[in-house]
Amino acid sequence: MMYKTLKVEALKKLVFQVLLSAGETEENAGIIFENLLEDEYMNKPTHGFYRIPSIVEALKTRNAVLPVKISQSNSIFSVDGQRNIGLVAVRKACDSIIAASKEQPLVMAGIFNYISTTGAIGYYTRYLARNGLISIMTCISGATVVPHGGMDPLFGTNPISVGIPYQDNPVITDVATAAISYGQLALLAKAGTSVSPNTILDKEGYPSTDPKDVTERGGTQLPLSGHKGYSLGLVFEILAGLLVGARSKNSASPDTDGALLIAFKPDVFIERNDFDRELDTFLMKIKNSRPAPGSDGIRIPGQYDTISYEKKKQSGEITIMDKVYEDIVSCL
Amino acid sequence: MMYKTLKVEALKKLVFQVLLSAGETEENAGIIFENLLEDEYMNKPTHGFYRIPSIVEALKTRNAVLPVKISQSNSIFSVDGQRNIGLVAVRKACDSIIAASKEQPLVMAGIFNYISTTGAIGYYTRYLARNGLISIMTCISGATVVPHGGMDPLFGTNPISVGIPYQDNPVITDVATAAISYGQLALLAKAGTSVSPNTILDKEGYPSTDPKDVTERGGTQLPLSGHKGYSLGLVFEILAGLLVGARSKNSASPDTDGALLIAFKPDVFIERNDFDRELDTFLMKIKNSRPAPGSDGIRIPGQYDTISYEKKKQSGEITIMDKVYEDIVSCL
Repeated sequence: MMYKTLKVEALKKLVFQVLLSAGETEENAGIIFENLLEDEYMNKPTHGFYRIPSIVEALKTRNAVLPVKISQSNSIFSVDGQRNIGLVAVRKACDSIIAASKEQPLVMAGIFNYISTTGAIGYYTRYLARNGLISIMTCISGATVVPHGGMDPLFGTNPISVGIPYQDNPVITDVATAAISYGQLALLAKAGTSVSPNTILDKEGYPSTDPKDVTERGGTQLPLSGHKGYSLGLVFEILAGLLVGARSKNSASPDTDGALLIAFKPDVFIERNDFDRELDTFLMKIKNSRPAPGSDGIRIPGQYDTISYEKKKQSGEITIMDKVYEDIVSCL
Repeated sequence: MMYKTLKVEALKKLVFQVLLSAGETEENAGIIFENLLEDEYMNKPTHGFYRIPSIVEALKTRNAVLPVKISQSNSIFSVDGQRNIGLVAVRKACDSIIAASKEQPLVMAGIFNYISTTGAIGYYTRYLARNGLISIMTCISGATVVPHGGMDPLFGTNPISVGIPYQDNPVITDVATAAISYGQLALLAKAGTSVSPNTILDKEGYPSTDPKDVTERGGTQLPLSGHKGYSLGLVFEILAGLLVGARSKNSASPDTDGALLIAFKPDVFIERNDFDRELDTFLMKIKNSRPAPGSDGIRIPGQYDTISYEKKKQSGEITIMDKVYEDIVSCL
């Protein structure tokens, strides 16, 4: 694969041009750019700028540009995306939560009626963690996963993410309830390699290891660890879908995805200083524990190599695939 | 194995005698009995009356019987177990949450400084669901699970449970973050059979399939699905442990476990009727979807066969292992 290194400012200019010409506002283009850039810095190009063309497609389906509508009733935020991009709707929800956290130690936001995608949900739990809040998030997506024992796709890969503030490098868990992510499947299909057993079914409901059975031939994905992933995926479908009013026949958004976000302060039960100190002790104990024979070490979930992350950020440059760049240009 | 069928009232009388003579109050004995009885009805004898002897052992370590101390500050409940049994402390927390839910649509309880066990956490999410609340719960337990890539046991099997009210038979997810539960390991060790690969390590950190490597020879348990279960188990350890003030050097309970419980009403975003109807439609769609070839059907997590459950309840009788009965008698 061929890569291109360019100035972040140049890419930003291009992305803004593309998004604005598709009808997005300057403010929202900034939110989208920042989110995708962060995922590139975090080495998650599957959630980075390659998503621009699908975001542009979604923007073109809008009749009008309306603001994300947030109603707050005490600790509850109902966030109507009003057909804004998921990345914009959830980020606006986060900003409201951060503002409210001065008054409300515990809040919950239901986000619905957004288009395209939320992107990686770990982005939001990390964003909230950097702003001093612990958070738990889940969301739903297009149905590709079967119930345990079944063969009809009824659930998204419905991930759960938890973010914990820790120094300048929060602890972030971001786990899908499917055995394998759709993105990984697509990559393996392109590479022509097989997937591990117990991850997918073919169209007739038989176990398969050929990723193209899913990406090209109507097969389905299995839940993570059978009934365990199934039972989590099912309740997340209820919490991030039915509960918040997404995918509901009666709602304004029968066809859109949804997300649920719960956030609270680390000092609701004990002093913040005590929490920080105990957390540091705990994480150090994990890092300094013995690796198993043959292991390549023990990592803390979601933490990145601060030095290489800061270096990338400060370089003012970014490397993306030629193909990704060309696809953005052709959106113009 | 030999079983004994006896009147529930007779067993209740025996269990009360045993608990009261170990210093428990009549009210708390009732809470403990009800919890264990429910797990027996739910076909979870691993969480049923066989736990009485270990509860009695824990009761004997108390110097004084103090009430569970619950401080409420708006939506936050800090629940100091004051060395009551976990089953009592969490149940009291649930009762406070139910009472407060008339005023507070969203609450969070941190429970700490309890002894023995909370029992199956699905008990509490089902209890709250029967009282009309959605809840999310996690708890910590003795460290037997290693971090992904490691060989030192640093986490409990830290489960997550989510309960959703549904007619008279709630949807309950209750999933451990370890590859296999300690209870299952102990059973397999007794039976002299092996465990699946990728579930345990021996004392030297090498993969094993002999459950006795853990139960008798200092081995450890692996997290569910490698880094996925690890990253969930780690954040649950923080949420149910450090955050609530359990296992903290600075706290009153450096040696005890902890639990975190978040509860809210199903009508925080949409009308309750709409939620109930959408949920029914969704669950029916799952139940009526096609089973995969060779599958023994599709079940909804946590739902029981209502007819057999009610029949058991109304029979006024209960069947337990002879050995379990004898162990309770010998506590007298």
